[in-house]
Amino acid sequence: METYQNILVAVDFYEQCEEITHKALALSHTYKAKLSIIHVVDNLPILDSSYGVEAPFNMDLITELMDNAKKKLADLAEKLQIPTDQVFLEMGSPKSEIVRVAEENAVDLIVIGSHGRHGLALLLGSTANGVLHYAKCDVLAVRIKDE
Amino acid sequence: METYQNILVAVDFYEQCEEITHKALALSHTYKAKLSIIHVVDNLPILDSSYGVEAPFNMDLITELMDNAKKKLADLAEKLQIPTDQVFLEMGSPKSEIVRVAEENAVDLIVIGSHGRHGLALLLGSTANGVLHYAKCDVLAVRIKDE
Repeated sequence: METYQNILVAVDFYEQCEEITHKALALSHTYKAKLSIIHVVDNLPILDSSYGVEAPFNMDLITELMDNAKKKLADLAEKLQIPTDQVFLEMGSPKSEIVRVAEENAVDLIVIGSHGRHGLALLLGSTANGVLHYAKCDVLAVRIKDE
Repeated sequence: METYQNILVAVDFYEQCEEITHKALALSHTYKAKLSIIHVVDNLPILDSSYGVEAPFNMDLITELMDNAKKKLADLAEKLQIPTDQVFLEMGSPKSEIVRVAEENAVDLIVIGSHGRHGLALLLGSTANGVLHYAKCDVLAVRIKDE
């Protein structure tokens, strides 16, 4: 019977992150699967001046954001006992980066949080949504209870 | 550690249906969870005359479609050893019916097949997509390899 061997959990450090990582960890234990973790620092709008916004390319801010994310991710990975070569910190479009890292590492299951979405948010889609569209592997969307 | 207790697998009898049901079955065994199955006969366009299509309300055709689906679903349920009270045959919008049955039966994981989608299909979304948006529980989207 087919089981998952290589699980990637995507985290954003926001609410219920712990619930998602716990479910991924439980799955990896159940299937004796390798567990990797990814966090993507979203594309920064300040880098885009196509709408006439003359915000400067602020390297200090980017460095600070990445350092901050790196520390949080390392702490979480340690807590989950994930070795450093299975920890991915990327910058860019979250859905594209998650799908890319999953493909490059032969991941067979992506675990990701998913909000209920309504109105405009529904139209715009979500990261979970984008991953579902483009991933070549299975996707477990863990429902995040909206307040 | 949290596990799934009540799994609902959605089937459409098309390609790779077996792969999806096998994954759902494996999960239900792993978690000693109850496994239910649902098939939704999609809304029939012939029932909609709002675009000036004067197709008759063909009760014979609907009865035939439902009988056919009922037989296929019963065969599949038997193969998977799913008791008849955990077999759901519905008619309507697949995403709405799957979400409704999941809620009414306190399902905590929906397993559904998901195609890669491009172009117009991406814009229109898919059943897996709709279920992901509206379900109040977790959703495992099993990637169907497109030919």
